[in-house]
Amino acid sequence: MTSIPLGGASFDRAAHHRLDEDWLDRAFQNEDARVLLMKDGMPLVVGGQSGHGPRPMVWLGPQAAMLSDKAKRLFLGLDDRDAPVFALDLPKRFNLDASPIAGLGVFEEMRAALGGLDAFDANAAATARSIFEWHHRNGYCANCGAKTDIVEAGWKRECDNCGAEHFPRTDPVAIMLAVKDDQCLLGRQAGWPDGFFSCLAGFIEPGETFEDGAARELKEEAGVVAIGEAEYLFSQPWPFPSSLMIGMILEVESFDLVIDESEIETARWFTREEARSIMAGTHDEVFAPPPMAIAHHILKAWAERD
Amino acid sequence: MTSIPLGGASFDRAAHHRLDEDWLDRAFQNEDARVLLMKDGMPLVVGGQSGHGPRPMVWLGPQAAMLSDKAKRLFLGLDDRDAPVFALDLPKRFNLDASPIAGLGVFEEMRAALGGLDAFDANAAATARSIFEWHHRNGYCANCGAKTDIVEAGWKRECDNCGAEHFPRTDPVAIMLAVKDDQCLLGRQAGWPDGFFSCLAGFIEPGETFEDGAARELKEEAGVVAIGEAEYLFSQPWPFPSSLMIGMILEVESFDLVIDESEIETARWFTREEARSIMAGTHDEVFAPPPMAIAHHILKAWAERD
Repeated sequence: MTSIPLGGASFDRAAHHRLDEDWLDRAFQNEDARVLLMKDGMPLVVGGQSGHGPRPMVWLGPQAAMLSDKAKRLFLGLDDRDAPVFALDLPKRFNLDASPIAGLGVFEEMRAALGGLDAFDANAAATARSIFEWHHRNGYCANCGAKTDIVEAGWKRECDNCGAEHFPRTDPVAIMLAVKDDQCLLGRQAGWPDGFFSCLAGFIEPGETFEDGAARELKEEAGVVAIGEAEYLFSQPWPFPSSLMIGMILEVESFDLVIDESEIETARWFTREEARSIMAGTHDEVFAPPPMAIAHHILKAWAERD
Repeated sequence: MTSIPLGGASFDRAAHHRLDEDWLDRAFQNEDARVLLMKDGMPLVVGGQSGHGPRPMVWLGPQAAMLSDKAKRLFLGLDDRDAPVFALDLPKRFNLDASPIAGLGVFEEMRAALGGLDAFDANAAATARSIFEWHHRNGYCANCGAKTDIVEAGWKRECDNCGAEHFPRTDPVAIMLAVKDDQCLLGRQAGWPDGFFSCLAGFIEPGETFEDGAARELKEEAGVVAIGEAEYLFSQPWPFPSSLMIGMILEVESFDLVIDESEIETARWFTREEARSIMAGTHDEVFAPPPMAIAHHILKAWAERD
């Protein structure tokens, strides 16, 4: 299986600990505790200034406890030496420079940060970001409108008023390469950098399989009709804010395109030879998503076939 | 591809019409309009009493408009003759027997009803039920607590207060057969009918791929460790209330089980010969889910292999 960044289950979620507040409090202050910090969806990475290229993430130990009264705490799980792994979401008002951890690092925009993280850190940061963003947008009960509380170590919200339970969303998104003969279809949205093309994609709706959703999006966005059996390749959690990307290849019946310009700016067929040069970074006009994105791996998988 | 009930995209969702209120109002009163009725999550099916075995669904024409001021209206799409297809969700207080459509049918519990529906009706009813149940549990804005309004022909809710947009949930669930050598693992929950066994399953969490989530659930529930590459088979929308079932087969490293009794009552290994007799309905003790359920098709796919 191709290894796709962000997923990969680098830590044991040890979900049985989520209900045990005493255990969680002790684990958080254990000398082997590992704590990542996040603010406004940005992880704390090593260095003095943001935007200076790939850097590792800052992991705090039990000294993170001194920040925890101001922060939301999430128990991520146990690492491969059974050390407890947590994330703290610092409030907007948190002033890094005036804090006890001034000088340890800098909060970096998430997409930029991910490029510098190893598999463990990327999986932990992606999970934490997705959960924290969900808490930010879900402080109230959708069922009754009352304020809700965080429970189960950060993995759930509960409504005292009506009793409803709320779990973080994970929204399945079909992302697919339409192919015919020896060509594949890439599209681009208005506002993307010049020459940047990627796979078409869209949310799976209630009542659809992956394959239904992928075929519908291809029809809606580019006017192409899927035939035969869709091929599932791999999936990827994508924490912007809570997508689960489902990578697929679908054969379509014709090269004729009808572009829905409210969805994409354009779409264009590329030969396999061109796809290879795009992946190699040697295409004259076109470049593709970086290895962080599942679209990169979908295009690569197809380009490398004979 | 094995055909799995409930999905299959039997109608064109024609999502470009969702924003056009005038078109929707006209289409709803078109003479070729097709309207299914639902109440408390139950579709209206032909017959005088519920619980009397499989029956087709009742489709109303434009006369459904006389019910629409009491009901939520959902535009499902266009059928293969381009006739507009709608669903109405009737309020709890709606009294069928005292209504203008008394005698046309009966509201039937969804799982029982589905067994009697053809592919088109099952896909339409499953989609409508999932959306309507979501509306029932999501009348308020999770971001600010204000009441929200239904927009886009039933496919979205909007908050006038904070501007947040809310889309129906589709919750990915891994449902998988653990296999080793020529045996497969089925489990059962306390409270299921005697002898009923099925695949293990659980929700995908933020930060997980399908394969991560499936492996975690197998470990949590039965103590078995997945090895090698998970095999994706097919997916199914499951409207109870909004799951998207992801059918997989995973090889595991040992027959040893450690059951988490808070999740399942027990789990047990079956030989392929036994799996075949379960599918044939001739096993002495054990029976499996009906063809409506994706678990049936997962077990069948594996049982029929050489």
